[in-house]
Amino acid sequence: MRFVQSRQISRPGQQLARGISRMLQTRGFVSVEEFVPVRGMRVDVLGLGPKGELWVIECKSCRTDFLTDLKWQGYMEWCDRFFWAVDIDFPTELLPFDTGLIVADAFGGEVIRMAPERKLAAARRRTMIQKFAAHAARRLAALRDPDFSL
Amino acid sequence: MRFVQSRQISRPGQQLARGISRMLQTRGFVSVEEFVPVRGMRVDVLGLGPKGELWVIECKSCRTDFLTDLKWQGYMEWCDRFFWAVDIDFPTELLPFDTGLIVADAFGGEVIRMAPERKLAAARRRTMIQKFAAHAARRLAALRDPDFSL
Repeated sequence: MRFVQSRQISRPGQQLARGISRMLQTRGFVSVEEFVPVRGMRVDVLGLGPKGELWVIECKSCRTDFLTDLKWQGYMEWCDRFFWAVDIDFPTELLPFDTGLIVADAFGGEVIRMAPERKLAAARRRTMIQKFAAHAARRLAALRDPDFSL
Repeated sequence: MRFVQSRQISRPGQQLARGISRMLQTRGFVSVEEFVPVRGMRVDVLGLGPKGELWVIECKSCRTDFLTDLKWQGYMEWCDRFFWAVDIDFPTELLPFDTGLIVADAFGGEVIRMAPERKLAAARRRTMIQKFAAHAARRLAALRDPDFSL
């Protein structure tokens, strides 16, 4: 692991997301950001594990960011495990105890409290993995071929 | 669609792959390149359709490139449809009639002959789509966070 920061990462949420992506990779997971499971919802990070496990990870930069989030309970039905990701200064006592907790920075992260598992139904898992595939491939295509857009 | 070429695309195979990716997007497909369905095999382009359809597309730059390919028949069992992609000057009479044919360049392509469909078994389709998701997400992560490698 090299700790060189090659590009500007400005917003705290983006810094956390990068660290989470790195942490997930060390666990054999892959991930995408800003994933839309269904119209009107957008999760910060969706992780996909080697056995098809789906983890939703919501990044919170501060107390207000958490307290004004009215949607997070709706995300639970789209994943096997739900986590918060915060930085080291976040007041973690605010967070519901029956959710997972990851402490992260721009360079990595650690699962402090494993989220309880509520397994997705097989059909929804299939749909989610196919959407994950399409999301990742579209973002990749946009980076590789920026001059093309439909 | 804009036809500005923003970066060097040197090899003919890469040019075709870009055009095929664009063509697939206009059909509602996403795609990845250099996908490994199983150890020892690597397909040039794997397309994923909105209903989970999997298309393998092998790019051939010239007669010799086709005649020395001893592996392509092994790819058929990893997709619903198998296509060749060639440029306009390729001697297409060489290609087996029961495979699909796409004529492409760096900017797009067209399906000249639709490949016959041999539907994958459900379990293999699920495995392939999950591998597609992991492949696309890993390539995306490598582009977005080039300083991190496991």
